[in-house]
Amino acid sequence: MKPNVAAARDALSHLEIDDKEVSVRSKSRDFFWYSPVLKERLDHVVGDFVVAPKTEAEVIEVLKTCYAHDVPVTTRGAGTGNYGQAMPLEGGCILHLKNMAAVKEIHPGRVIVEPGCLLKDLDAACIEQSGQEIRMYSSTWATATIGGFIAGGSGGVGSCTWGSLRDLGNIIRLRVVTMEEEPRILEFTGEALARVSHAYGTNGIITEIEMPLAPAYDWVEMFVAYDDFTPAMELAEAVANEDGILIKLATVFEAPIAHAYFQRVKPHVEEGTHMVGLMVAPHSMDGFLTLLARMGGTLIYRSDDNDWERTPGPVFEYGWNHTTLRALKVEPSITYLQVRYGYPQHKELIGKMRAEFSPEVLQHLEVLREQGKVMFAGLSLVKFTTEERLDEIIRMHEEAGAMIFNPHRYTLEEGGRQTVDDRQLAFKREADPKGLLNPGKMIAWDDPNWAFDRMYAYPKMQAAE
Amino acid sequence: MKPNVAAARDALSHLEIDDKEVSVRSKSRDFFWYSPVLKERLDHVVGDFVVAPKTEAEVIEVLKTCYAHDVPVTTRGAGTGNYGQAMPLEGGCILHLKNMAAVKEIHPGRVIVEPGCLLKDLDAACIEQSGQEIRMYSSTWATATIGGFIAGGSGGVGSCTWGSLRDLGNIIRLRVVTMEEEPRILEFTGEALARVSHAYGTNGIITEIEMPLAPAYDWVEMFVAYDDFTPAMELAEAVANEDGILIKLATVFEAPIAHAYFQRVKPHVEEGTHMVGLMVAPHSMDGFLTLLARMGGTLIYRSDDNDWERTPGPVFEYGWNHTTLRALKVEPSITYLQVRYGYPQHKELIGKMRAEFSPEVLQHLEVLREQGKVMFAGLSLVKFTTEERLDEIIRMHEEAGAMIFNPHRYTLEEGGRQTVDDRQLAFKREADPKGLLNPGKMIAWDDPNWAFDRMYAYPKMQAAE
Ligand SMILES: Cc1cc2nc3c(=O)[nH]c(=O)nc-3n(C[C@H](O)[C@H](O)[C@H](O)COP(=O)(O)OP(=O)(O)OC[C@H]3O[C@@H](n4cnc5c(N)ncnc54)[C@H](O)[C@@H]3O)c2cc1C
Ligand SMILES: Cc1cc2nc3c(=O)[nH]c(=O)nc-3n(C[C@H](O)[C@H](O)[C@H](O)COP(=O)(O)OP(=O)(O)OC[C@H]3O[C@@H](n4cnc5c(N)ncnc54)[C@H](O)[C@@H]3O)c2cc1C
Repeated sequence: MKPNVAAARDALSHLEIDDKEVSVRSKSRDFFWYSPVLKERLDHVVGDFVVAPKTEAEVIEVLKTCYAHDVPVTTRGAGTGNYGQAMPLEGGCILHLKNMAAVKEIHPGRVIVEPGCLLKDLDAACIEQSGQEIRMYSSTWATATIGGFIAGGSGGVGSCTWGSLRDLGNIIRLRVVTMEEEPRILEFTGEALARVSHAYGTNGIITEIEMPLAPAYDWVEMFVAYDDFTPAMELAEAVANEDGILIKLATVFEAPIAHAYFQRVKPHVEEGTHMVGLMVAPHSMDGFLTLLARMGGTLIYRSDDNDWERTPGPVFEYGWNHTTLRALKVEPSITYLQVRYGYPQHKELIGKMRAEFSPEVLQHLEVLREQGKVMFAGLSLVKFTTEERLDEIIRMHEEAGAMIFNPHRYTLEEGGRQTVDDRQLAFKREADPKGLLNPGKMIAWDDPNWAFDRMYAYPKMQAAE
Repeated sequence: MKPNVAAARDALSHLEIDDKEVSVRSKSRDFFWYSPVLKERLDHVVGDFVVAPKTEAEVIEVLKTCYAHDVPVTTRGAGTGNYGQAMPLEGGCILHLKNMAAVKEIHPGRVIVEPGCLLKDLDAACIEQSGQEIRMYSSTWATATIGGFIAGGSGGVGSCTWGSLRDLGNIIRLRVVTMEEEPRILEFTGEALARVSHAYGTNGIITEIEMPLAPAYDWVEMFVAYDDFTPAMELAEAVANEDGILIKLATVFEAPIAHAYFQRVKPHVEEGTHMVGLMVAPHSMDGFLTLLARMGGTLIYRSDDNDWERTPGPVFEYGWNHTTLRALKVEPSITYLQVRYGYPQHKELIGKMRAEFSPEVLQHLEVLREQGKVMFAGLSLVKFTTEERLDEIIRMHEEAGAMIFNPHRYTLEEGGRQTVDDRQLAFKREADPKGLLNPGKMIAWDDPNWAFDRMYAYPKMQAAE
């Protein structure tokens, strides 16, 4: 079963192929380097060639051909993932979906789209056709694909209202191609969606997506400043708990994040400023300003009315993992954690973690709805020193009751709840019998007895040169 | 200060006046008779004449004229209120708003409308112009006005998602005319909205309304049947807690409500059937059916696909106070309570009340969002025997921790939280110095030291003949 890469590449040469070394290398990488841990382990990883099918039929041809020649296939949207999700650990074929980007149908409340469509292009099409937009998007809206968001993302801007991407109702239908001798085309709805959503493309290629839509508004984007952390956190929570105030984003930045890392915000805040970033529907602004007056806090920026010499750009590009990006650019030793502060202990837990770790770990919180409750997702900024210390920080969070989705691991399980997703595994058995799809990302497939007592290291990973 | 009704009527005779006895009597009544307590006390109440202004200027003229002649003015939308809200306890002028029903402007997310517009006409205009609809409406959507809803209502179909009418953001702006020597026109937003919303027209006349809109969908209306009460209640709660499933209604009917009182449903249920009524967005149906399969329950009706010989009509016309209406029609001794089952004790409290009172009191629950939490409003059906027993039932609810908004009282305070709303009272002092607007409805105005130890009886109420 040794892969015959050359044979597969040749058999596919009538398709759009890229095998120029520099560009194959760049298309083999994602944002894994946010993690110093992954940076050390994955930096050398590179595929053999890139193929960019134009149709589902061409996807099938790629999968069938690579199956015949035992060549691994790693799917790529835009490669903005953070866990090395899109990196071909064993090399092989990179299936690039940039040519499958059509918005096929738009209806009231839903859209049908190909996976390679950029989130921003999808929104533009829906807005133009009927003033609608997707319920939520990753903060990489401008560069990421909808397919990559579903296969690799978790939620984002909009999750303060609609919950996470994998909550019931946030994906309507997925069309999936399997990697078998004769690839099959399957349509998934309901429970079956969980087989392939957030499966990193390890058990099928998503070729068509049906997503719910919400009305598009001219969201008013804002920054609110506080001298203390707790009232900042409480504003974000309170606005999300006001059922009549429609929001798309509520982010909390512990001081000195705004001052230290947000260049365009810096002139307007102090080092000690804690800040809340918000997107509020224009017709909810009266309600919001009423709440703000009740709760205190200084509105330092609103997108529809301000005198900033240099405006900050979209406020959501300060939130979610863009906070980390901005911090990294200023201070390269920064990395991050993904924390779940579940209701009703969320605020207490956050207080504990701050007391324990600030400023080594700075709180960056995103309001998230979970099972109908407003809670916080933490994308804490961590001043990295050693892997041991990072692991210790993680352990102390877990011991306190704050679940960690470890972004310093490249497997589904370690980046998730450290348990096997049986639905994904069972479907991989069916859909990828040779285990060629994005190899090394599902521990349960490689090593069912893995104990999660240390970081998993994929045995068949390419050797570093 | 004796009212000079004849003088006022004459001075207004160039306006649209109705003083035919039968129709003045009918326009002096609302749905107070749902309450046997109010029926006994208010049945004789009648105004002197009805005037129906066509413009705000005419409203001002009516108020100025009645002020000059000390004539009480009771505003009327459609008279579908339940607390005798629109009944002229002292007689006088009935200000009927049917001629002020224009939809003035529709924008993304908001509408500007005159108060006399029927809820259903407002929705029709918004749907036609831009596929939008109001966030919530009383189940009297087909007959009630938007002004009456704001001045007298509390929430309804849509409150499972958007909360109550008076939550921040659910009313954007109100334009109000005062009853002074020279009536003023005021514009209220933010905190000031609370002065006149749900004030029964006791301190000003609302002449223009700006409301938020939500997208209009072809809501799928459903009935789900259960053999047990608890799983029915749990489905309603669970669907509201699924952040990705968009709903507009989730109602629970304890057995035998569906069988005993819902004629068109009866053939499809047993006496022991507990039922859930739902409105779900079409693009959320996949998520909903997935949840339903997880939780159990039999889908006996869906509006978009059924083989019922006689369809039930809009499902929301089984919910909110329409449940009471349907029960009353079959069993005239039925009346009702309005109960708040607050999170997180809601289910436990409901269980207690059922154990204590069923079937004398049958649970009819509406999912409601309150401060971001899913809880239940109860519009319990009560088999009325005596006023003493009714008071006892109320007392036992309150002792258990279930707040009661007593629908057997005609004052703002007794139908509310039994406390004076200082904002409303203060504004009444300013806007209605002679106390002529809807007299007898605000205890704080008449008798600031009232102790709420028994039912308030307005001293200047018309004598029954
Ligand atoms: C600055 C920054 C901010 C971010 N913010 C967020 C955020 O707010 N929320 C969030 O969830 N993520 C966030 N991310 C992670 C990432 O950007 C998103 O998940 C993004 O949506 C991924 O899309 P992509 O097209 O880049 O996917 P890729 O990185 O190309 O792929 C992601 C995974 O999906 C697989 N895949 C891609 N397409 C398919 C397909 N059609 N079928 C099967 N598998 C497929 C890939 O193999 C890979 O495993 C952020 C990342 C960065 C760098
Ligand atoms: C079967 C049934 C079901 C119901 N369901 C609900 C429900 O789901 N939710 C709910 O909240 N209510 C409900 N109600 C009560 C009532 O129908 C609603 O509140 C309705 O919206 C009132 O509108 P209306 O036009 O009939 O108002 P009216 O009854 O005419 O007036 C209500 C009050 O508002 C005042 N008022 C009216 N217009 C103005 C104005 N422009 N300016 C100042 N004051 C004004 C009146 O003086 C009166 O005090 C129900 C009633 C019935 C009979």
